[in-house]
Amino acid sequence: MKQLQGLQERFEKALEALELPSEPKFLYEPISYTLSNGGKRMRPLLVLLGCRIFNESVNEAIHPAIGVELFHNFTLLHDDIMDKAPLRRGMKTVHEKWNNHVAILSGDAMFIKAYQELLQTRLDVIPSILTEFNKTALEICEGQQMDMDFETSEDVSIDSYLKMISLKTAVLLAASLKIGATIGGANRSQAQLLYDFGLNAGIAFQLQDDILDVYGESQKVGKQKGGDIISSKKTFLLLKAMELARGEEAESLKKWLASESESEKVKAVTEIYSQLGIRKLAEDRMWEFYNKGVSSLNQVEGDEEWIGRLRTFSEKLMHRES
Amino acid sequence: MKQLQGLQERFEKALEALELPSEPKFLYEPISYTLSNGGKRMRPLLVLLGCRIFNESVNEAIHPAIGVELFHNFTLLHDDIMDKAPLRRGMKTVHEKWNNHVAILSGDAMFIKAYQELLQTRLDVIPSILTEFNKTALEICEGQQMDMDFETSEDVSIDSYLKMISLKTAVLLAASLKIGATIGGANRSQAQLLYDFGLNAGIAFQLQDDILDVYGESQKVGKQKGGDIISSKKTFLLLKAMELARGEEAESLKKWLASESESEKVKAVTEIYSQLGIRKLAEDRMWEFYNKGVSSLNQVEGDEEWIGRLRTFSEKLMHRES
Repeated sequence: MKQLQGLQERFEKALEALELPSEPKFLYEPISYTLSNGGKRMRPLLVLLGCRIFNESVNEAIHPAIGVELFHNFTLLHDDIMDKAPLRRGMKTVHEKWNNHVAILSGDAMFIKAYQELLQTRLDVIPSILTEFNKTALEICEGQQMDMDFETSEDVSIDSYLKMISLKTAVLLAASLKIGATIGGANRSQAQLLYDFGLNAGIAFQLQDDILDVYGESQKVGKQKGGDIISSKKTFLLLKAMELARGEEAESLKKWLASESESEKVKAVTEIYSQLGIRKLAEDRMWEFYNKGVSSLNQVEGDEEWIGRLRTFSEKLMHRES
Repeated sequence: MKQLQGLQERFEKALEALELPSEPKFLYEPISYTLSNGGKRMRPLLVLLGCRIFNESVNEAIHPAIGVELFHNFTLLHDDIMDKAPLRRGMKTVHEKWNNHVAILSGDAMFIKAYQELLQTRLDVIPSILTEFNKTALEICEGQQMDMDFETSEDVSIDSYLKMISLKTAVLLAASLKIGATIGGANRSQAQLLYDFGLNAGIAFQLQDDILDVYGESQKVGKQKGGDIISSKKTFLLLKAMELARGEEAESLKKWLASESESEKVKAVTEIYSQLGIRKLAEDRMWEFYNKGVSSLNQVEGDEEWIGRLRTFSEKLMHRES
């Protein structure tokens, strides 16, 4: 994975060189703070990979990659206000460290900075990458609203859950690849194949997050094992269990969902999952999406070595254990 | 002003035709609600006027005009959360009618819709109008942050106040004209002349708002006469008075600013203003900016009739009494 590391390092260097004004302090400091907080930088890597598959140079994709990362961090910043999250990647969220007003406005500014970076590329691709970006950004808002609506809804179908995770997280992975490919010179249908790969793999990654919350080996920083169960979060696993449980099992699940306990609740709900074979059902669905994605990737006509690297990278993500 | 009305009607029609998805309801309903709430539609009119001065057709400027109006309404939506404003144009604000989360996210979506509209114009001008728009949008965030910083600052200079109103309100009027002019085919220096006119006239309009709050004849809907004085808002008038007041007068002004009373406070502070000749100083400064703007407008080489209509329109704004 040395070659991927090379792209990642180029990105980090470019991001570090991003200049922000020093004043007004409360507008720009939260942006530097957010960016310094790290993260996996997966989306910008996908922009660069998408470009590299079709072009030996990724120069023109560097700034748009920064744009996509700024945008992603902007959505986290505003989501954290709405979710009242105290921590993000182990550090205080912006609305906690400063306040809601600072988080709203510095988020808005980060969003505008994203557009500024997206414009720094080949003039001829600007209209098409911005059209793609705007569509995606709006879909992410729709996904976030659906996610909030689900919290209070009694009746969430598996289909609408899949639509929500697709909008909230998968479309940005897909669009990152497509934007990169477009900058790299891919034609529409080739760029669309990468999009389809990113979309389906993205849904698979999210289903895997749901699975790992319950069955993961070690746990991610700041995430509690079974945290989704404790908060009765409507994940694929829970929705599937609610769909399949009958009679006493359904009653028991309902009772536990209303419970305030933690480890007991996790144990009991996991037991119900196991009786219903939920893990296998979720894994089957996850691999179905992933394999559908890979069949699109296999049709891409670009640099075979880099296509292989993208495949290896995503397979590694599929086999992570936390 | 029949011709201006024609442009305004075209804009309203196009805005009415703007289609928004029906779901998720809490994302899109607040956008329709905000747009139906009216407003002066000054910024889109300036986009169309800027275009019309250089081109017989304003077709290519219609969607960007919608984009600018969407953006302006997005800033009001987020500002209203930060200012905890209960009403906007006599109607409940979005965060009051729904809640803060809905206001944050539907605001974000409105912002993205703005970019979608801005892209619907001649391909060759997209990079330059978006560059102008992004710069302006970021300046508006800076202006809003400065405005919030001033609330708790003891030491606000007249210069930084002028910079704040320039960023918070004037730059968008200026950029609206410039974006329209660019779409209409103006070259850089011609478009810049319209920008300079909009910037200086915009500062003049804001200074006039400060003056009308105290000296206006009739009052705007939802605005209380002397409202700025009651809330001790740091307007040009108050900052100038704080700069000039000496001895007993300075003591008295300080005392009144800390006072909770309303009509007494307005009367007393207005009296201090009158002793210091504040009204004349503010009006002189206002006309200085306005005339500077007009001298730029006079250098524009475009359709003389339409330049004249823009001049008449802005003069009417300068002579309004509320």
